[in-house]
Amino acid sequence: MKKHNFSAGPSILPQEVFKKSADAILNFNNSNLSILEISHRSKDFIAVMDTACELALEHLNLQNKGYKALFLQGGASTQFLMVAYNLLNHKAAYLNTGTWSTKALKEAKLFGEVIEVASSKDKNFNYVPKNYSIPTDADYFHCTSNNTIFGTQLNHFPTTQIPMVCDMSSDIFSRVLDFSKFDLIYAGAQKNMGPAGTTLVVVKEDILGKIERTIPSIMDYRTHITAESMFNTPSVFAVYVSMLTLEWLKNLGGVAAIEKTNTQKAEILYSEIDRNPLFVGFAEKEDRSKMNVTFNLTEGANQELFDSLWKEAGISGINGHRSVGGYRASIYNAMPIESVQVLVDAMKEFERKS
Amino acid sequence: MKKHNFSAGPSILPQEVFKKSADAILNFNNSNLSILEISHRSKDFIAVMDTACELALEHLNLQNKGYKALFLQGGASTQFLMVAYNLLNHKAAYLNTGTWSTKALKEAKLFGEVIEVASSKDKNFNYVPKNYSIPTDADYFHCTSNNTIFGTQLNHFPTTQIPMVCDMSSDIFSRVLDFSKFDLIYAGAQKNMGPAGTTLVVVKEDILGKIERTIPSIMDYRTHITAESMFNTPSVFAVYVSMLTLEWLKNLGGVAAIEKTNTQKAEILYSEIDRNPLFVGFAEKEDRSKMNVTFNLTEGANQELFDSLWKEAGISGINGHRSVGGYRASIYNAMPIESVQVLVDAMKEFERKS
Repeated sequence: MKKHNFSAGPSILPQEVFKKSADAILNFNNSNLSILEISHRSKDFIAVMDTACELALEHLNLQNKGYKALFLQGGASTQFLMVAYNLLNHKAAYLNTGTWSTKALKEAKLFGEVIEVASSKDKNFNYVPKNYSIPTDADYFHCTSNNTIFGTQLNHFPTTQIPMVCDMSSDIFSRVLDFSKFDLIYAGAQKNMGPAGTTLVVVKEDILGKIERTIPSIMDYRTHITAESMFNTPSVFAVYVSMLTLEWLKNLGGVAAIEKTNTQKAEILYSEIDRNPLFVGFAEKEDRSKMNVTFNLTEGANQELFDSLWKEAGISGINGHRSVGGYRASIYNAMPIESVQVLVDAMKEFERKS
Repeated sequence: MKKHNFSAGPSILPQEVFKKSADAILNFNNSNLSILEISHRSKDFIAVMDTACELALEHLNLQNKGYKALFLQGGASTQFLMVAYNLLNHKAAYLNTGTWSTKALKEAKLFGEVIEVASSKDKNFNYVPKNYSIPTDADYFHCTSNNTIFGTQLNHFPTTQIPMVCDMSSDIFSRVLDFSKFDLIYAGAQKNMGPAGTTLVVVKEDILGKIERTIPSIMDYRTHITAESMFNTPSVFAVYVSMLTLEWLKNLGGVAAIEKTNTQKAEILYSEIDRNPLFVGFAEKEDRSKMNVTFNLTEGANQELFDSLWKEAGISGINGHRSVGGYRASIYNAMPIESVQVLVDAMKEFERKS
């Protein structure tokens, strides 16, 4: 039975990517070798890494603008640390919009003063703070573009005089932005890009090298830039699958094309949440995420019935995070509209049967 | 044409592991979901992680002895840093047997005094130093059990009063040792365990928590022990393939059984190197590695001819590392004796045709 996988991450990837990945495990590039057993220094894998980096920059419209793309290990959680190691001299400014921002902020505190410019913690992060001011003497400003757990998304980014760093783990490649506003973007692969195990970092080179401290080799972005993401053995397979996914996106028409579909999927689902008296959205309407749709049952609604209906429909991965409860439907790039429609149909059926 | 893959890492894995991995990408555990799209918090993946950790401890005979097994991201290169972050208060002792020891030592220097108890750098690391003394007031002693690049291997480990830390990246699970002599063992997966992208750490819990400094969350072994390797999203697929490889090893009879085959393979290859007048081994005989066999052509031998012969035989990955030159045949656990025989046959044919 076909599954409709709304998992928040690791999450759905295009079916053709699964197919090509499985093929490459048995025979990569007609080499009679598995992608799992080839050297990361082989010509074939260097081509994979180069293509993945080029496609990442191309999708962000950041080629030839002084940026480097890197595929590193350690997830966004390691970036919380690396960002501060490489950029925090004395003071940094953080916007706190959820669990991941909070964690990023905590790690930065080990390296200097951290100013929380605003926080939406007062309402369990169900909105995105606006009208905050960013100290101009901070070394950088850090924000999280999409909050996977709470289902909010930043629609406006400040214009800053200082470098802007953004954790885009859960909405990278999902919408067109002026990415040149950002000086450092990072994203764990496991939502819109590939399987868990690799992390994209896109960094403007001229912000680096301005720190006094000695940075451990593996924590230093310059190490990885010089070594072209091969300072140590990269996560070969995860980079390969990321490349396939970025190629799939390109063939589809790129970020602008997928953004249209993403908007459509989000509208279908949010419309039903707003229409159906048995559901209530969690996030403030103006800050709703187009990637992670969080919602709860209204008082007295029969949870058992709804759970049985979506399970019967082949839906998986929509249980909400423990910090929010209820439901969370993650509708990343690879999620087809048809699957969103299956969920909406289950919600309608729930209303009929209640 | 069948390939005989002597790559130093990422390297050959069992054929049945490739097959099962490819299957799991299309349909994992009959879930109709890919292993690449499931949550790391799903019941099925938690079972994979638990099994991989249990098998790792079982193969090392370290169950119920106060050790924890972890699967982390970042490779051994990140362990160079984590070891020092977690254990180095004032002084550490390092044995320098090659490129990776040297790198480990360099990172540790950021955290305190580092004593190089001995080094084989004087002879381009072609031997393993003996009869060194380890300062008893050091926080720990660090060594590298097998030197992938130079083809040497430690046959004796000192008995220490202080914690002993060992980088076993390139020979873990290849031979029986008294692993309880070690307090912390780490190994990048990409030789005897799985694909690149995950790193096994086996740590005796009671050596932790004795440091004054604040350790960043992701660098702290205690973070990962508490979270059972799920503090952040683990490298799901790499852990899965590692589990399959550890299961394959168990079905084969475990480390003791594979050690016999490994010894046999090494003997076949070293015998030919010693017999054939066109080849000379790189490492001192008593320190020869059973995993990475390094050798050069003797003066005047026709390199072009030898290279064409092994390529015709379907051999790949035997070019030596740039620091040593010549050839390196890596004969990890998954390498069949038959492939070693193919290489030896090519060496014999080279002699006949020269």
